[in-house]
Amino acid sequence: MHWMRFRDRAGAVRRGEYEDGTVSFGGRTYDVDDVEVLPPAEPSKVVCVGRNYAAHAEERGEEVPDRPLLFLKPPNAVASDGDTVTLPGDNYIEHEAEVAVVIGEQCRNVAVEDALDVVAGYTAADDVSNRTDQSQEKNWVRGKAFDGACPLGPVLASPDEVPHDASVELRVNGETRQSSSIEHFIFTVPELIAEITEYMTLEPGDVIITGTPEGVAELEDGDSVEVEVEGVGTLSHDVERR
Amino acid sequence: MHWMRFRDRAGAVRRGEYEDGTVSFGGRTYDVDDVEVLPPAEPSKVVCVGRNYAAHAEERGEEVPDRPLLFLKPPNAVASDGDTVTLPGDNYIEHEAEVAVVIGEQCRNVAVEDALDVVAGYTAADDVSNRTDQSQEKNWVRGKAFDGACPLGPVLASPDEVPHDASVELRVNGETRQSSSIEHFIFTVPELIAEITEYMTLEPGDVIITGTPEGVAELEDGDSVEVEVEGVGTLSHDVERR
Repeated sequence: MHWMRFRDRAGAVRRGEYEDGTVSFGGRTYDVDDVEVLPPAEPSKVVCVGRNYAAHAEERGEEVPDRPLLFLKPPNAVASDGDTVTLPGDNYIEHEAEVAVVIGEQCRNVAVEDALDVVAGYTAADDVSNRTDQSQEKNWVRGKAFDGACPLGPVLASPDEVPHDASVELRVNGETRQSSSIEHFIFTVPELIAEITEYMTLEPGDVIITGTPEGVAELEDGDSVEVEVEGVGTLSHDVERR
Repeated sequence: MHWMRFRDRAGAVRRGEYEDGTVSFGGRTYDVDDVEVLPPAEPSKVVCVGRNYAAHAEERGEEVPDRPLLFLKPPNAVASDGDTVTLPGDNYIEHEAEVAVVIGEQCRNVAVEDALDVVAGYTAADDVSNRTDQSQEKNWVRGKAFDGACPLGPVLASPDEVPHDASVELRVNGETRQSSSIEHFIFTVPELIAEITEYMTLEPGDVIITGTPEGVAELEDGDSVEVEVEGVGTLSHDVERR
């Protein structure tokens, strides 16, 4: 199943079943074009994983880590499907296609073998990255945590919808820039959940973004980005410089 | 004025005026010992500043940055006055006494000269730091963002209560370990707010912790920590290893 969060015309926030361009809630079916699509989760934090595909670590000239490289995006970073992300300053900005894991229940100290039980489902994300600041700072705050730096969506796909070798693809203005599969993860989703919850509680709606494959490249004013995850669908967002 | 968030016996969360061990709300006055003290803010994020006192940068063998060193703690890190913080693993943990700024209104791109307008007030914090992991990781997530890594409290002091040269002191089991004043900040509160809001929206209740002075040292199982900020009061928490 696919779930979409949306705001109806009366302003109420709903979570309905998505199918073929429509979303159903409370016995009514809406055309998606008639509602405001919201991010499929409201995370209290987005826990992010760096260098989780060997080919991306290689293109950045960095080693594959021996445990997950973690960083954080706060709620201000979340953007919706259809949003236009304003790039900060005159910086060099890149896209990073990622598969996002949405947590379904409050959890801590989860064992690898139990970790899939706390997953509500999956969505698509773009880890929009400001390399100019990222390369200068110890912690990637200006680089990764600016407003709009984490478009998420368009829907939450239940785990059964997403194959173990789901493809991840990113297109800019229709041209494919990244194309890989989650079978190339260095650390699997259960391993990530176990590692993260050794240190912190995950809340329902919290999101883990699982790293980007090779092919990251620059975003320019006016670009349109699509992140397609097999079994989820396609997240679309634009970027602008002001 | 001093404001305390608390949960009354019926479970309702209240924000009352604090004075001399009592908190008043809705015409009733409670003894603080009869209520559950809550953190004075519910941040969507805690934006943290490293190396904001020259003497602390020196004791860590690090240079004073030319712009604020920022990092993040998510909501799971927040703990209350009176809480016992569980130290993660067998790691080497240190205390860091800090003054916390609580934001009063949603804001973005705030100019230095307007920045004090968005400050609701001040409280005390301990930036509990897991040096074992911090020293190994690029972003300080295991090192700084674990559950309980940010005790906050006990009250929110309005800005007029806190002098420009307020003292900051930390004691462990009654023994003074850190003693300085916010007049030694490298970056002032308005400068920090302007820098952070160039990149991200701050929400009401968001917290900026302003860096720690010299004197950081190890915390051991069973230690009792007090962080006293002039004009605010004293935040107390214990630590345990499990």
